[in-house]
Amino acid sequence: MLNDVLSTIDARKHQSLTALKEFLSIPSVSTKPDHKPDMLRCATWLADQFKFGEFTASVMQTPGHPIVVAKNKHVPGRPTVLVYGHYDVQPVEPLELWTTPPFEPTVRKDENGFDAIYARGSADDKGQVWCHVEAGLAWQAHGGMPINVTYLIEGEEESGSDHLEAFVKHYAGDLRADVCVISDTNQFARGLPALTYGLRGLAYAEIFITGPDHDLHSGLYGGAVPNPANVLCELVASFHTDDGRVNIVGFYNDVLDPTPTERALWTDLPFTEDAFAKSVGIPHGNGEAGYTSLERKWARPTLDVNGITTGYQGPGAKTVIPSKASAKISMRLVPSQDSAKIQSAFEQAVKNRVPKNCTVEVKWFGASAPVLVPIDGQATQLAAEALRQGFGTEPTFMREGGSIPVVGMLKRVLGLDTLLIGFGLPDDRVHSPNEKFDLDALHKGTRTCAALYEQLSTFGS
Amino acid sequence: MLNDVLSTIDARKHQSLTALKEFLSIPSVSTKPDHKPDMLRCATWLADQFKFGEFTASVMQTPGHPIVVAKNKHVPGRPTVLVYGHYDVQPVEPLELWTTPPFEPTVRKDENGFDAIYARGSADDKGQVWCHVEAGLAWQAHGGMPINVTYLIEGEEESGSDHLEAFVKHYAGDLRADVCVISDTNQFARGLPALTYGLRGLAYAEIFITGPDHDLHSGLYGGAVPNPANVLCELVASFHTDDGRVNIVGFYNDVLDPTPTERALWTDLPFTEDAFAKSVGIPHGNGEAGYTSLERKWARPTLDVNGITTGYQGPGAKTVIPSKASAKISMRLVPSQDSAKIQSAFEQAVKNRVPKNCTVEVKWFGASAPVLVPIDGQATQLAAEALRQGFGTEPTFMREGGSIPVVGMLKRVLGLDTLLIGFGLPDDRVHSPNEKFDLDALHKGTRTCAALYEQLSTFGS
Repeated sequence: MLNDVLSTIDARKHQSLTALKEFLSIPSVSTKPDHKPDMLRCATWLADQFKFGEFTASVMQTPGHPIVVAKNKHVPGRPTVLVYGHYDVQPVEPLELWTTPPFEPTVRKDENGFDAIYARGSADDKGQVWCHVEAGLAWQAHGGMPINVTYLIEGEEESGSDHLEAFVKHYAGDLRADVCVISDTNQFARGLPALTYGLRGLAYAEIFITGPDHDLHSGLYGGAVPNPANVLCELVASFHTDDGRVNIVGFYNDVLDPTPTERALWTDLPFTEDAFAKSVGIPHGNGEAGYTSLERKWARPTLDVNGITTGYQGPGAKTVIPSKASAKISMRLVPSQDSAKIQSAFEQAVKNRVPKNCTVEVKWFGASAPVLVPIDGQATQLAAEALRQGFGTEPTFMREGGSIPVVGMLKRVLGLDTLLIGFGLPDDRVHSPNEKFDLDALHKGTRTCAALYEQLSTFGS
Repeated sequence: MLNDVLSTIDARKHQSLTALKEFLSIPSVSTKPDHKPDMLRCATWLADQFKFGEFTASVMQTPGHPIVVAKNKHVPGRPTVLVYGHYDVQPVEPLELWTTPPFEPTVRKDENGFDAIYARGSADDKGQVWCHVEAGLAWQAHGGMPINVTYLIEGEEESGSDHLEAFVKHYAGDLRADVCVISDTNQFARGLPALTYGLRGLAYAEIFITGPDHDLHSGLYGGAVPNPANVLCELVASFHTDDGRVNIVGFYNDVLDPTPTERALWTDLPFTEDAFAKSVGIPHGNGEAGYTSLERKWARPTLDVNGITTGYQGPGAKTVIPSKASAKISMRLVPSQDSAKIQSAFEQAVKNRVPKNCTVEVKWFGASAPVLVPIDGQATQLAAEALRQGFGTEPTFMREGGSIPVVGMLKRVLGLDTLLIGFGLPDDRVHSPNEKFDLDALHKGTRTCAALYEQLSTFGS
């Protein structure tokens, strides 16, 4: 039966692309209030596609943008799979850097000569959502899928998924499943599809240091009072040792080293330090001593400044000792660090290190847990087989340095493990001008989703 | 003769205040283009006051705001004194913090129960300029001054004195003098008038650090690339040792310690560490080990951050590794540090300390030299006697931590030494809302100027 489904997908390549262009032409920018009508239009369009394939589909209201929920006919006794994705997209600014308009999807060759579709959301995440929809429709055309599938496609991923958790809690019974699938990650490289089995977690703080109770003239007072801007720099500098390690008591206590199997796997990947450095415009990378760049990105925790505000920032000179200085600081966490323990160790370090004649406050912007799924787990191996069938090549296993908070939320609320099976390429420029999605990835991704629905029919048995 | 002049000043207190109110009611904010007509109006008003006293006075055009030049009848063989001041004022924002409107001068009690005039520019510098004008007018009413005086009152001090140096060079012959007098500083405290015999110099830099050639996602890249915001903090932190000294090779080479005489003088001043800390809202001051706060402000060099810009500064969280980070940094210099040597040592330190996979640029915003006049010099002693006559009390000698670039410029261009004889109080809130000038300071300052003109008639003999 899968062969028939794959043949249908192969035969419908052109129609699939045409439908995706419609999807991409709706400017569903979730953060911009003036796109609110587009959000509803986009959700409705998506629900209609499911309905064409005899799925039940609803556009569900939330206090924010609607969520699309679609199901095939659920049959008791079969595994149930929750497919999560998002139909909202990032803002498009700066518009002048786009070669073709972001909401006029255009097929052309990319820099390496491969056909790709250029549009905002093409890779993140409409193109990848579309792989699942098209695969589901192909199965429906052949009598239906061998599993129960629930699609949960939200419209607020790019603006913080503010209403998703409450929604999932409210509809927990309807959304119950055995495993979750998310296609919102990348292949390791073009032609080297990958299962992402690890993510880093995140703890994001903002630190506010106050010295004198008003801005002072740096001539009249300089040298005799604490300068919060200098204090902030000294605090931030204290967070790393000379060998690039994070200098907070207990920070590395729970860090798991990659296994020898993982290290061997990563060594074989087509990754060179030179190409990596060149891709970001630096002569060479740097970080924690004793690790490769891949290890630093995937398996080592970090502490990075994301922004600093203090004093005079206009043109020219102003001789002010600022009363306040603040920094946004994010820590990426790896298995099995616990974000609450790290937050507490960080706060303790901050409080110990700021001089007693300044005050300091720490504010947190949420936290997400690191994710690590065993490579040899059943779901992972079934997904690897689906990639083999979809791409016709041997997939690899990779981790990713970013965080996908919904993974932790679904684990916490529904007890679900998530398979991360993504089809993007590292140079797709998600969140940037000229976002694209490789047409080969679109086609083989769709085949992979179809194969995955069959593979997962044996899940849990 | 001085006694007659002082009697006239005593008798004209009310008229003097009325005239000052007119002066203060003209909103001569030099940085705001829409005040351009007010600048000309203010300069013209001031020139008119001089003309009423039979001075020759001109409103001289510059590419920016006009400069007022006024002279009494210069008689060969007498000392010539250049009185410098400025008629422009700082912007008034935030307007809502003013108790009475900044350009509706109002007399009321200050927080300590003393009469003061509240208006923008009352202390800085219109009120102090007015002391000189009123003193000059009183002398003219009694047959003229025993010295040659040239008043040079500019309109761009609060916006960088952009056109003053070229003007002084162009009119160097007309402005030639034996000594310069500036009244734009403070008494040490109310009732303790002071000669300011030392100023700190300034070297003001902006540092720009670039790492990756575009902003990166802190999840996907964090830990493997240089983060310019962290690098900047580490650089800034490296500029101080744990005991609060500036950690740049050669920085202290030319620093002169205060003399035992100076230390004894400062110990006797009515200054307590507690009151100082309380005045800026901190539990205690801090700085270079082994020095008092007064020594740190007056006689020790500093390095302060005046502003930092990097990464995301809006509300909430954004996970970005910024491509660039920049900091404005000012160093206050003391006798006999050389700003060029300090700038070069600073640049060398920056270049040595920034990692090789980042680039760094240093931009300078001018520099000014520290000033130190011998307390026992003739001009200083004559000015001290004028303060004694004007205030009826024993004056003190103080330094100031700020910089007055015009002092160095007049030395460089005209070879002039400057007497800093100011009448403001430390709590006059110059540059802030509710700026005020003490009425007693206005009156005794005017008396002091009158006495100074007599004292200086013996200068150089």
